[in-house]
Amino acid sequence: MAIPYPHFIASEKAAMDAGLLHPSSPSVILTQDDLKKIAAYKAVEYVESGMVLGLGTGSTAKHAVERIGELLRQGKLKDIVGIPTSKKTHEQALSLGIPLSDLDSHPVVDLAIDGADEVDPFLNLVKGRGGSLLREKMVEGACKKFIVIVDESKLVNYLGGSRLAMPVEVIQFCWKFTASRLQNLFHQSGCVAKLRTFPDTADPFVTDNGNFVVDLYFDRSIGDLKAASDSILQLPGVVEHGMFLDMATTVIVAGELGLTLKNK
Amino acid sequence: MAIPYPHFIASEKAAMDAGLLHPSSPSVILTQDDLKKIAAYKAVEYVESGMVLGLGTGSTAKHAVERIGELLRQGKLKDIVGIPTSKKTHEQALSLGIPLSDLDSHPVVDLAIDGADEVDPFLNLVKGRGGSLLREKMVEGACKKFIVIVDESKLVNYLGGSRLAMPVEVIQFCWKFTASRLQNLFHQSGCVAKLRTFPDTADPFVTDNGNFVVDLYFDRSIGDLKAASDSILQLPGVVEHGMFLDMATTVIVAGELGLTLKNK
Repeated sequence: MAIPYPHFIASEKAAMDAGLLHPSSPSVILTQDDLKKIAAYKAVEYVESGMVLGLGTGSTAKHAVERIGELLRQGKLKDIVGIPTSKKTHEQALSLGIPLSDLDSHPVVDLAIDGADEVDPFLNLVKGRGGSLLREKMVEGACKKFIVIVDESKLVNYLGGSRLAMPVEVIQFCWKFTASRLQNLFHQSGCVAKLRTFPDTADPFVTDNGNFVVDLYFDRSIGDLKAASDSILQLPGVVEHGMFLDMATTVIVAGELGLTLKNK
Repeated sequence: MAIPYPHFIASEKAAMDAGLLHPSSPSVILTQDDLKKIAAYKAVEYVESGMVLGLGTGSTAKHAVERIGELLRQGKLKDIVGIPTSKKTHEQALSLGIPLSDLDSHPVVDLAIDGADEVDPFLNLVKGRGGSLLREKMVEGACKKFIVIVDESKLVNYLGGSRLAMPVEVIQFCWKFTASRLQNLFHQSGCVAKLRTFPDTADPFVTDNGNFVVDLYFDRSIGDLKAASDSILQLPGVVEHGMFLDMATTVIVAGELGLTLKNK
């Protein structure tokens, strides 16, 4: 059940903090970015002083990083160590004055907050349409608590169900061969594999780790996700894929009608 | 049972072709490199004109590549397409005039010939001490027949049994964290994980794909190899490991007493 915003505002204040809702105007129309911001602000309520924090990447996570920077500046949070999940987030956090480190120095992360491209009913995720899936998976796989923040458009009945990309990071060497093996692997699900390119130049997109991304599109469910994950990882040439199985501990969904919290 | 060289010479001529043995002097003392060469020459007897060939990397495989170049020059082989498994082999094959291609253009390979660092009784291998494990696994995983050539020092009772490195290719980002997770994974087997460096400069060794190599050393067997493989691949940050399970179709072992052929 979603918590309606007027009630939510009274009890939680996340949306008010986000500067989006006022008790006097509960009927304001919210954009998708407003919803992302509300979810992000709600998640940051879980952050406590002294925590090692995984900082996500993407249009939703950037609101959370911004909010953490704000609370640090206001002195409401102290002694935070941020572990960014991409070069982009690294830069954003630096510019906000958030102290940063990495997994080599802080192998245990207290809490990570990040967006997702898809969330299924079991809190399995597709991530990586922004291109940072590998570093995200490293950081978020090392944390005690992983809060995922999404607007309601990201909820799917099964992973791949949005008909949008399920990304796989592959080494550049013979990427066509790897793409073709990936497509064959999910032949039964009507899979189409495409190299991710920049729309303007058609140059391949290159990850922070110097690899390419092959995006998989499915017509139908790929079935057993654990089996699918292992099959993908067993292909030499594959570095990592964008399915985050059994990793999220909480998902915060912001919808038109209010916030929903889903816990593992 | 090993085929003694004098008999082997009479029937197969591999050692004689390698210029190492003569019927008149069967008691010559063979170096380890001689044995590698004999195994390599024997393997090249399986090469036929018109084949797409996976060309291995390392001190044993280089003899096979050399021999293929020689047979092409002599006109005894024709219409060969070589798929090199490393930049080094690419250069060697180029210099020998072997026509080259890649998996993108030739996704099916007729035969691959390569060395190995360890061979267990079930023909499972450890490869990659030379640093080319990923490209080797891509090419050798795409071939109909995979002949492994080793001198007898490479035979082990179980993978890791030589107490030498079992290599894992990892992305550079937070490699210490990944190395520590790898070591923990095989804690029960007394695993020690070390970054591969150049002995003279202590700089990290970088693979053809721009990654680092973490070498694993075991005190005891790691048990179920398939389970070990999956656990390693499931770690984000791992690109590939050096266990080649259920891939070799023939292993040619050159020992002091003769050649042994092991088939799947």
